[in-house]
Formats: sequence, C-alpha cells, structure tokens
Amino acid sequence: MATLELGVLVSGSGSNLQAVLDAVAAGALDARVRVVVSNRDDAFALERARRAGVPTRVVRHAEFADRAAFDASLVEVLRGAGASLVVLAGFMRVLTPTLLDAFPGAVVNIHPALLPSFPGVHGQGQALRYGVKIAGCTVHFVDAGTDTGPVIAQAAVPVLDDDDEAALTARILAEEHALLVDVLRWIAAGQVELVPGTASSRPRVVTRGVRASRGLGG
Amino acid sequence: MATLELGVLVSGSGSNLQAVLDAVAAGALDARVRVVVSNRDDAFALERARRAGVPTRVVRHAEFADRAAFDASLVEVLRGAGASLVVLAGFMRVLTPTLLDAFPGAVVNIHPALLPSFPGVHGQGQALRYGVKIAGCTVHFVDAGTDTGPVIAQAAVPVLDDDDEAALTARILAEEHALLVDVLRWIAAGQVELVPGTASSRPRVVTRGVRASRGLGG
Repeated sequence: MATLELGVLVSGSGSNLQAVLDAVAAGALDARVRVVVSNRDDAFALERARRAGVPTRVVRHAEFADRAAFDASLVEVLRGAGASLVVLAGFMRVLTPTLLDAFPGAVVNIHPALLPSFPGVHGQGQALRYGVKIAGCTVHFVDAGTDTGPVIAQAAVPVLDDDDEAALTARILAEEHALLVDVLRWIAAGQVELVPGTASSRPRVVTRGVRASRGLGG
Repeated sequence: MATLELGVLVSGSGSNLQAVLDAVAAGALDARVRVVVSNRDDAFALERARRAGVPTRVVRHAEFADRAAFDASLVEVLRGAGASLVVLAGFMRVLTPTLLDAFPGAVVNIHPALLPSFPGVHGQGQALRYGVKIAGCTVHFVDAGTDTGPVIAQAAVPVLDDDDEAALTARILAEEHALLVDVLRWIAAGQVELVPGTASSRPRVVTRGVRASRGLGG
C-alpha cells in the first residue's frame, strides 16, 4: 500500500490537522502532509504546519472572481505540492466541480455531526438546540453539496443534560481526531471503496475488514 | 411514584407493545396497559393484547370525516379506559391537537431512526439507502409534526457493510424494545421532565439520574 500524499485545507485552529501530523510523526499513519492550504491568513493551523515542517500556502478566496477560479488556484497548489488525497479539516468553503473533478473520489471532509442530521455550520450547536441525546461526527467523501457526500465512517457520543456547546464540542472533537486518523489509515491500506451510485441509488462506501463506526458499545 | 396507566396505539405487529407487556408481567415496569387501540382490524398487536388479558379496541380511521374526528374518538376510548399516558407503538397516523391537547406532555412515540435524521416511514431503509454507518432509534414526546417532538432518549447501533433492510431493522428493533421500556420506567419514577420551549428555543427533555442514550461505549 502506497504512502498517502495529503493536501490539507484549513480555515481555523487546525486541531484535526494536528491529529494527522501527530499520527504521521508517531508512525501510526503511512502518510506525508505535502501542503497545508488556508483561505485565511490568521488560521492557527498554518502555525501548526510550520512547526511540523510542512509547507503552507494561503489562498484568499476574496481575491478570486468566483468560486471556480478560487478552486482552480487550490488545484494548482495541491497538484504542485504532489498531493493525491485532499483532506478538508475545518475548511469553511463549499467546493466546486473544478476541484472535485481534479481529485475524483479523493476529497474527504470531517463534520461535527451524525450526518445527515445538522449539516452546515455549528453542527454541535444545532444538535444541542434540537435536543438530541446522541451526537457525533462523520468523515465523508465530498460532493458538490454541503456535507451531503457518501459517508465513510461515523462516531457517536452522548449528549448530557448539563452540556453547553463548548462541552459537547470538546467531546465530539476527541472523536473527530481519532475517526479522521482511522479513515486515513484505512484509505492508505486500501480498505475504503467508493461504490458509484446508480439511477436509483446514492454512491456508498464499503470498508473492508474494519468497522466504520466508533463510540458504540458491544 | 404512581403506577403508569397506559393506552397503547398500534397499527401493526406490536413487538414494542409486547416488550411493554413483558416488562409489566415481569415486575420490571410499574405500569398497567389499560387499553390497546388499533386503527386496523388485522394488527397482530391486538392478538398480543388479548393474550395478555388487555382490553382492545379498533378505531378505523376510514370511518371518520377527518383526522380531528378520528382523534376525538381515540380520546374517548383512551379516557374511558383510564389511560393517562399514551404510547404510540408502530401507530401509523399523524395525530392532531385534538388528541395532543387531551394528553398534554403525555404522548410518546418510538421511531426507528436517530431523529432528526430519517423521519416518516421506513426510517431503517432510509438510513441504509443514505449510507450512514450509525443508525438507531428515538423515543420522543409527540407534537403535531411527523417525528419532530422533543427527544427523550436515543439508542445507536452500527450499520454493517452486508446489512440488508431486514438485518438493520432487527438490530434496531432490539434497541427499541429496551429503550421504550427504559423510558417508561423513568417516566414512572418521575425522572423525565419536559422543559417548555421559549421564543428562541425548542422544548427539550431533561432526564434525572439516568443517561438518555443507549448503545454507546465507555
């Protein structure tokens, strides 16, 4: 199985990026982070990348005429760095076919909710306000929708009566770190297959030899 | 804490009713099933009730001019039997304020999905077709929407790669039986509080001294 050549897109603090960098450094994940790309100059994720000796680039979406032009620039940066799998780790922009077609079946996102519940921003707060008793996170292949792509793996956590958004966010985040590294490890090992959709079915993901759910008992 | 006086509404095979009857018979749930009401003559749940010595009634929705008139008949039957808590156990009709206002905060439903994902019919099949890796069930207070009421408790189960709808349905159903009996036990013990909504928040449920999630590890 080949080493994963990762391009990681970020917008914020980058704790999921850190989980990937730590797993690589520990020899727990057969991958190289080739480049970390942020759409914001002030993303702390850039600092995390520098500390790990990973090249960084800032591509400011406001400087482009439209989303496709922004995505074309991302593609150029990612390809130039030698990335073959794109990881969205807290990247707050919806991607267009310009990027998705350049990396077919090779763009993954992590979302802090048990999709299809609570897509979009602040999934944790949405869950808390709805009043669910089980929350979680999802790693999925990215399509042109908002958090609508084929699910690769999910992790569940309890919601407790005295949770505020910070407490629930922290509980989910610990699972995000583990789930994202798990999924990248499975992809590196060739255990993740994206089965194309048909006229009557969505594309779906089969994981071989591993259970695609975390946080469950039994 | 007072014995629960239950009216159970059914449309089908009634395995959740059976779980309640078994828990009552075993002394594990301080409740009496006062009446089982079906909107269908051929619901096997009616046979289960008869075997347990529980009175049954059939109220055929097709015989009523509208849903409110149907619900008014249900209210009459439930009140006449002495029910104070109404349990929807596979009851396939949406209720109107006529019934909900007659039993305020005292109508619960069990749904085979982790709401708000996959409301409506065939929640298990919806989950399978979407491709989630974690499925489950929800017990909630009923409001005038379809499976939109305040969540009392949820249980999670894995979705496995070789699951068909029957396999997933069976895995969820085992959790439904346990979750429904748990929730009724908590209600009997006064541990379930429905906190009213405000202008900016949904009503929500607080459970005292018990964890409102099942199926999770740790």
